[in-house]
Amino acid sequence: MSTPDELRELVESYLADLALTPELDGLDESMRNALAGGGKRVRPVLCLATAEAAGAEAEAALPAAAALELVHNFSLVHDDLPALDNDELRRGRPSTWAGFGEAVAILAGDALLAEALRLALSYPTPAVARELVQATLGMIGGQYLDVTGAQTDLASLHRLKTGCLFSASVACALWTADVPEREQPPWRAFADEVGLLFQIVDDILDEDGYLLEHGADGARALADEAAERAQVRLGEVPGDTSVLAGIVSGLAARTS
Amino acid sequence: MSTPDELRELVESYLADLALTPELDGLDESMRNALAGGGKRVRPVLCLATAEAAGAEAEAALPAAAALELVHNFSLVHDDLPALDNDELRRGRPSTWAGFGEAVAILAGDALLAEALRLALSYPTPAVARELVQATLGMIGGQYLDVTGAQTDLASLHRLKTGCLFSASVACALWTADVPEREQPPWRAFADEVGLLFQIVDDILDEDGYLLEHGADGARALADEAAERAQVRLGEVPGDTSVLAGIVSGLAARTS
Repeated sequence: MSTPDELRELVESYLADLALTPELDGLDESMRNALAGGGKRVRPVLCLATAEAAGAEAEAALPAAAALELVHNFSLVHDDLPALDNDELRRGRPSTWAGFGEAVAILAGDALLAEALRLALSYPTPAVARELVQATLGMIGGQYLDVTGAQTDLASLHRLKTGCLFSASVACALWTADVPEREQPPWRAFADEVGLLFQIVDDILDEDGYLLEHGADGARALADEAAERAQVRLGEVPGDTSVLAGIVSGLAARTS
Repeated sequence: MSTPDELRELVESYLADLALTPELDGLDESMRNALAGGGKRVRPVLCLATAEAAGAEAEAALPAAAALELVHNFSLVHDDLPALDNDELRRGRPSTWAGFGEAVAILAGDALLAEALRLALSYPTPAVARELVQATLGMIGGQYLDVTGAQTDLASLHRLKTGCLFSASVACALWTADVPEREQPPWRAFADEVGLLFQIVDDILDEDGYLLEHGADGARALADEAAERAQVRLGEVPGDTSVLAGIVSGLAARTS
């Protein structure tokens, strides 16, 4: 079993060496810039840790893990655009459109999504790519609700915008580890709680969403409950889930 | 064997009834609007005709055919955006951004691409989706060259912007018809010529590209040569290729 830091190193190294489709030509600069933004790699690390807990080699799950990170960055690149969230900064650096122009940012987002699918399609089974596509469609639906200001409850919005890709992070790992579909439900229930936990803590740190709706203490209690349920779910799956349990504790306690 | 008009009817009916992912919510309106624009459905018809020529039922290739049309429309929706081609009109109607706003158009394009992959992933083999993703990456690369005004020859640019998806239209059909990879090269060579033919005629009709580079007579001669080579290639593949031969003649003679 690898530690989360070791898994993160694997992801960083894989992303740094990732060969992009040659036909993308100079567009790769903006894509690599978006990918190198110093994110925490939560989703790919969760994917690799799940793969190891399910008895597979982390290396076998690396294309899926990288695909998850590319989809995450596709959504950030497009969400930052002036017509959407109009964010000039992303993790303290110019966002893709601010650094490379809107046209390049639109195309770079498109290409990150397509490259993600290419990676997910490197497996013999189409199941990995199916998980990724379903998650992507949910994320786009969530962003649409956000942009249009549609009336919707916070839990549904967060499930789409964040939960879908967390669920896919676990589900993709299960397919790469050949976990049969009938054995997947407890893993998937675990993933749902992790996604919720991540989002509540995000809102606490950003003073947004759950914090505004439930207050600081209320949101903290919801986060702790989600973390607790995630740990309970982990107890229901076979295999050594100690690293995953540590990831849950880390997500509950994170301060950035 | 179905006529091209019968195949086009199949495509129209399938697209009209297509169930989009429920999580996309109200975004579906802009997507359906983009899809209902009255295009000629050249790519999906080529896909279905290839499937029938290769001995399969057209119906079996419909998800792939629709996926090709969705990818084509994804590229149109994003290419029309103000930051790219800044086209307010598409086929005589407001383009997606002009009708629904930029934010919705960006998300609608993203969702068309993701839905296309979902359709392509409905097959047991990942090969259909792989073809589609490779073509999409080529198209994005072509659009990048176009937007940045990079020095590149017309043939390379057209191969990326148009040729890739024509090749995928034939290749996806081959996979749905279970044509083994070793028997695919002449079909793919046929597809390359059809894509080139389509683009040259497009340039003649738009007084652009090949017409500017080779003059009216020169471009016409190039189109006729591409059509002739496409017919020769068709003679090399097994099966009843009469409908495909008619499609080639129609593309060579088209006036809109």
